[in-house]
Amino acid sequence: MGFSKKPVKGMTDFLPGDVRLRDSVLAEIKRTYAQYGFAQIETPCMEHIGNLTSKQGGDNEKLIFRIEKRGAAFERAWESGNRDELVDNGLRYDLTVPLSRFYANNKEQLPSPFRALQTGPVWRADQPAKGRFRQFVQCDIDVLGDATNLAEIELITATSAALSRVLGKAGIASFTVHVNDRRILRAAALKAGFAEDEIAGVLVTLDKLDKIGFDGVEAELLANGAEPSVVASYLDFFRKGVDEAHCSPFCEMVDAEGLSDVSANLDEIIGSASALTGEGVQVKFDPTLVRGMGYYTGPIFEVTVDNFGISIAGGGRYDEMIGKFSGEDVCACGFSIGFERIIAVLKDAGIEDLADDAAKGGVAFLIDAKAGTEKRREALIAAQALRSEGRNVAVLPMRKNMKRQIQTLEGEGFTEFNKVYAQ
Amino acid sequence: MGFSKKPVKGMTDFLPGDVRLRDSVLAEIKRTYAQYGFAQIETPCMEHIGNLTSKQGGDNEKLIFRIEKRGAAFERAWESGNRDELVDNGLRYDLTVPLSRFYANNKEQLPSPFRALQTGPVWRADQPAKGRFRQFVQCDIDVLGDATNLAEIELITATSAALSRVLGKAGIASFTVHVNDRRILRAAALKAGFAEDEIAGVLVTLDKLDKIGFDGVEAELLANGAEPSVVASYLDFFRKGVDEAHCSPFCEMVDAEGLSDVSANLDEIIGSASALTGEGVQVKFDPTLVRGMGYYTGPIFEVTVDNFGISIAGGGRYDEMIGKFSGEDVCACGFSIGFERIIAVLKDAGIEDLADDAAKGGVAFLIDAKAGTEKRREALIAAQALRSEGRNVAVLPMRKNMKRQIQTLEGEGFTEFNKVYAQ
Repeated sequence: MGFSKKPVKGMTDFLPGDVRLRDSVLAEIKRTYAQYGFAQIETPCMEHIGNLTSKQGGDNEKLIFRIEKRGAAFERAWESGNRDELVDNGLRYDLTVPLSRFYANNKEQLPSPFRALQTGPVWRADQPAKGRFRQFVQCDIDVLGDATNLAEIELITATSAALSRVLGKAGIASFTVHVNDRRILRAAALKAGFAEDEIAGVLVTLDKLDKIGFDGVEAELLANGAEPSVVASYLDFFRKGVDEAHCSPFCEMVDAEGLSDVSANLDEIIGSASALTGEGVQVKFDPTLVRGMGYYTGPIFEVTVDNFGISIAGGGRYDEMIGKFSGEDVCACGFSIGFERIIAVLKDAGIEDLADDAAKGGVAFLIDAKAGTEKRREALIAAQALRSEGRNVAVLPMRKNMKRQIQTLEGEGFTEFNKVYAQ
Repeated sequence: MGFSKKPVKGMTDFLPGDVRLRDSVLAEIKRTYAQYGFAQIETPCMEHIGNLTSKQGGDNEKLIFRIEKRGAAFERAWESGNRDELVDNGLRYDLTVPLSRFYANNKEQLPSPFRALQTGPVWRADQPAKGRFRQFVQCDIDVLGDATNLAEIELITATSAALSRVLGKAGIASFTVHVNDRRILRAAALKAGFAEDEIAGVLVTLDKLDKIGFDGVEAELLANGAEPSVVASYLDFFRKGVDEAHCSPFCEMVDAEGLSDVSANLDEIIGSASALTGEGVQVKFDPTLVRGMGYYTGPIFEVTVDNFGISIAGGGRYDEMIGKFSGEDVCACGFSIGFERIIAVLKDAGIEDLADDAAKGGVAFLIDAKAGTEKRREALIAAQALRSEGRNVAVLPMRKNMKRQIQTLEGEGFTEFNKVYAQ
């Protein structure tokens, strides 16, 4: 096989300008989450294939990059003729599976509740498309072992603060945190007359409301075989106009058993989060918010940027998932920032860097090849002196086409050029 | 397959304390290299298997984690019965192969010379041992496209500065940069009477000098079939006592054709680097320095910590390697910090964190379950106010065993505890 100079399919080379932006955004997010008492952890990029294929990961399990065994183990597997035996590990497709394993492995050394920050690359062998990569960065905070709604309130407040700081630099002053609860979604569907085993399908359709409208949802539910009267009373719930500041009116309308506790809990989350988040952040009850993953058990949230209509963060409570992975029940709640989407939004807004402009205003010494040892030494010492004052300095050989060299260096952030010629 | 709570073999979970140390060291290194005008790039963790197995990577190519093809491509490969067809990609085993590919792919957009900083995980399916992991971080700077010794001088000066800053915090005030040139090694072996095709083997033996001494090297060379007279005149070169500040006396003694240019070049590197590095850093000519990798073509360097005797960084000039990978000749020179070794040295010295102590002195609010909505809200607002003053604050449910909870939180860096009870 020859040498390929392109990255592997769906993956990206990041040039210095890309890294500056990505690094500065990640630093701002981490700084914010540290202020909210989240402790950063790190897990290996590789996991046991058994952990990755335990049926908790939904469709993502179909997209795993699988890693071959090595040496004698591979030989044995090859001889066995069983293709499933060929691999022992895979690359992680999210950060939640590793978090579950990490918590099971290190629980004794961690506080309870444990507030974790994890950020790093994940891999999915998805069909690449605009904004969809095969290696991409996730940025998750999770609270493990807190059954109270302090977890939800702190997660929403912290994520809103991080997004405000990052998007604020792009002049994107306002975004909305949509809040709902899986138990409200379930109760409304049951109350309207859907059967328990129809709920998952109904929610897939409801999730399309913002794209296909009430008529589209109605048509799809009917096409899927639902009773017209059931569909009518179901959609009535959502048509009646929602009090965005409180979920209790909606819950009273649905009037299902046990819903008042759910409602009081969610209203406290909405009220506290509204009071605690800054200007430009709206926290609102949205009974049509679904969130795809089936593992959510309670409150769910999603952040949309008002003028872009795209979702840039999402999460919720998943009290049963870690137990299914590790065999030990641990209540859990998380919020994940769509890092690559944030970067795309910032790039669209023309933002190059969130950091201080230390890297800019760099100094380049351009040394003529004939300058000789002494002149070169003087330049190196002068460069060192500037560095000790905190400047960014490079000492470089002068190119024949110096005009072009300086242009490229200006693109890299250098603004001052000291030319060193022969005496 | 069941759930395994341990990380995969040879890989590590990093707890919050580990991440704090690793992150702060990496930040200090990056900050230093930025000051020296190195621009950070990022490449995917995965590379085409053909790029990873092009025979430039030496023994590392035997340690590749190979990734299975997916979907129809895997089916075809499986049907073919050819095991080599099963994989299309692999995890990178170093950062130099990706750098070569990156440069070939993006050259038009990069300045010349290009000063690159790359840091990230690499993977090798090596037998795990103390300090040897299957996933570990490398931290490389490289100058591509600079044939002058400005590249070597800047690489040594920058790496020394980074190491001084990081190790200085651990009270490790002194280390040595050993410098040599592959052409001097080659000339000395030829002059003593070894044949061209014996040189590689001779250097493998010479590399053991600090472990087995002159007697051991002599015995091994003889055991490998060398003439006693050749061995005697070879070892004479090294026994005669070396001027550590200049390589020219050694080169004059060897007295081989073409060596005077090599000697003048290396002496300028040693002289300039000595003048530019700070207190505690010794740059010295070491004619016994070999560096394992066969791809080096000129000056080579290695950093040892004086009191530990271990190597913590190494590099050199490799003018032919990128051409062999990409088909386009680009002269290149690099220096790689052994990140995991630095971390081990710092941990041995009891260093927990290089960063400012902002994370320490965190404030925890502990909320009694019976405190009620209003009290809880007050605490959340008070927490938010402290955060806006720059403090790190977490709001947590109070545990029954509050004493134990506080102890664990103190371990996480919290020093102030506000308890919120029912009214």
